[in-house]
Amino acid sequence: MRVDGKPFRTIWVDEDQRTVHIIDQTKLPHVFETVGLTNLLDAARAIKDMQVRGAPLIGVTAAYGVALALLEEPTDANLDRACAILAATRPTAVNLQWALAAMRMHVLLLPPDERAHAAFSRAGEIAEDDVGLCEAIGQHGLTLIRAVAARKGGQPVNVLTHCNAGWLATVDWGTATAPIYKAHEEGIALHVWVDETRPRNQGASLTAWELGKHGVAHTVIVDNAGGHLMQHGKVDLVIVGTDRTTAAGDVCNKIGTYLKALAAKDNNVPFFVAAPSPSIDFAIHDGVAEVPIETRSPEEVTHIPGLAPDGRLTTVRVTPPASPALNYAFDVTPARLVTGLITERGVIEANQQALAKAFPERI
Amino acid sequence: MRVDGKPFRTIWVDEDQRTVHIIDQTKLPHVFETVGLTNLLDAARAIKDMQVRGAPLIGVTAAYGVALALLEEPTDANLDRACAILAATRPTAVNLQWALAAMRMHVLLLPPDERAHAAFSRAGEIAEDDVGLCEAIGQHGLTLIRAVAARKGGQPVNVLTHCNAGWLATVDWGTATAPIYKAHEEGIALHVWVDETRPRNQGASLTAWELGKHGVAHTVIVDNAGGHLMQHGKVDLVIVGTDRTTAAGDVCNKIGTYLKALAAKDNNVPFFVAAPSPSIDFAIHDGVAEVPIETRSPEEVTHIPGLAPDGRLTTVRVTPPASPALNYAFDVTPARLVTGLITERGVIEANQQALAKAFPERI
Repeated sequence: MRVDGKPFRTIWVDEDQRTVHIIDQTKLPHVFETVGLTNLLDAARAIKDMQVRGAPLIGVTAAYGVALALLEEPTDANLDRACAILAATRPTAVNLQWALAAMRMHVLLLPPDERAHAAFSRAGEIAEDDVGLCEAIGQHGLTLIRAVAARKGGQPVNVLTHCNAGWLATVDWGTATAPIYKAHEEGIALHVWVDETRPRNQGASLTAWELGKHGVAHTVIVDNAGGHLMQHGKVDLVIVGTDRTTAAGDVCNKIGTYLKALAAKDNNVPFFVAAPSPSIDFAIHDGVAEVPIETRSPEEVTHIPGLAPDGRLTTVRVTPPASPALNYAFDVTPARLVTGLITERGVIEANQQALAKAFPERI
Repeated sequence: MRVDGKPFRTIWVDEDQRTVHIIDQTKLPHVFETVGLTNLLDAARAIKDMQVRGAPLIGVTAAYGVALALLEEPTDANLDRACAILAATRPTAVNLQWALAAMRMHVLLLPPDERAHAAFSRAGEIAEDDVGLCEAIGQHGLTLIRAVAARKGGQPVNVLTHCNAGWLATVDWGTATAPIYKAHEEGIALHVWVDETRPRNQGASLTAWELGKHGVAHTVIVDNAGGHLMQHGKVDLVIVGTDRTTAAGDVCNKIGTYLKALAAKDNNVPFFVAAPSPSIDFAIHDGVAEVPIETRSPEEVTHIPGLAPDGRLTTVRVTPPASPALNYAFDVTPARLVTGLITERGVIEANQQALAKAFPERI
């Protein structure tokens, strides 16, 4: 999407295929800085230090990491080493493991001198596939926004979103934001309520930044505010992302999503989930019972990073030193609270039958 | 309550009735510091700068402010001036206006040389009345916690609370915390989930501090986490405070309370509101329609105060400079989501009939 008018993706390659560029997302929203990756360890560090984040973007960065490694030394041994090093950067990231397997399969049988070039091509394909997936979600979600806009006769459509399921988490467009960007490009008046999304504040720091830079009207709110806004008719629809959706349509997403879904239900506000099919796990059904919820460092609760008055990035402690904190990263929104899943194959109901019908090859 | 073993109230008077002491709550949880107020302007500043906060404590501080003013000069003119100055510190605080009226009525017909002494006595009565109110709420709420404890056979009772309706907001005991402290004193095993309560973080900074200093087991969580905890059986009951409860039992309280009430309902977790009768407004019924919700400075959303690594109190910005923020201070929880109101006259249902029966003199 655009940053101050200039089109960007989250990852791109120089024409000579020697340098991969990323946006250093750890410095957002305070500093916009791109970083050039020229070898395997640069790519591994970018993933590990979370300069890139979001499942799709991590996968693409890992794919380019393999390509950079093969540029250094196109042997089998170095291919193994690259995959091992990259796999260890974020061991639980499914897209990353998948991308590494795809890269290995693509280059393994090629003669060494063709490997680097082929690897860059394959990584580029993985990136383009992700863009296509997000764009398709954007097109299907756009129909939902169009329908609301038609009812509102020129008044802005108010969308509420949680966390960052934006273009910064993918290669371009994002998932939950794709319908928003598509509607914006079509000239539909809209405004986005951005949940700050404690503890890591990805809404306040990333979603607000990307919407603002692209020129989409938005307002940051605390996570506590969404219910009040819905009670007072200030939210027309909710669109969130998902880390994992079950075969029955239960949605695991950033902690706090469930509370917004409850408020949406209580106020008859449609609650949609942008769910690219790779995030749907057909092996499990009951999300609350079956999805293990990761706990992360308590420091994310007790300490908050930001920009100090003197312009430096720092971190402040907000709790008493003797008080423990607990940090669940995700929660599960039961399918009964989900109005629909926006997939690359269309908007479908959040239930087993609809999911099976839309993705028969996955059953 | 206790601070590291030593009993404290939020406000107390020296034996010679010349100095009123308060805890500087702006520095909590990072620094525990008491401040001596010796004149009217000290008291006015303490209220205005929010060194004292919470409706009951503001009222008592204003009452002592009148007493300090009469110590300086016990004339009618100075009484008027004191009331005007104190009334202007927090113009919307109902308890403050009530306390000033009560003080004026008490001293106005007395000869000047008796006024200061009488004013200190009356302010002391107002403080004791608040302690009595909170203790009564504590006793009634204790029966609810006892009942859960009996079921759990020694396993800790898990209470979730939002914001700070603790002793720091009153003179002692607090409202939502009073049942917790009573249960703790009785030796009931319990553990409190403390919502941090963005944007002002009163849970993380005040509730966590007071529970910790008194020795009550607790864990700080982000506001997003409560729904997940309830889904997994980790909350036995919710107890929150209220700023204003309607004649129909709708509860206006800190923003985000409504979301927790929805989650409690969805998971069959009892949701109680500690509601001292002065906070019940029998003149209004429909809370969502009739209670005006104040918006506060967007800076409370965009900037977060805390303790920097170098030990200084500072503030960090968490949002992009170009992103607007909106800051609603309260929301309304409809009576249908409230299991019961813990008043000083007992635990009653949140509906018009039960409220009218419990407080017939208010109708």
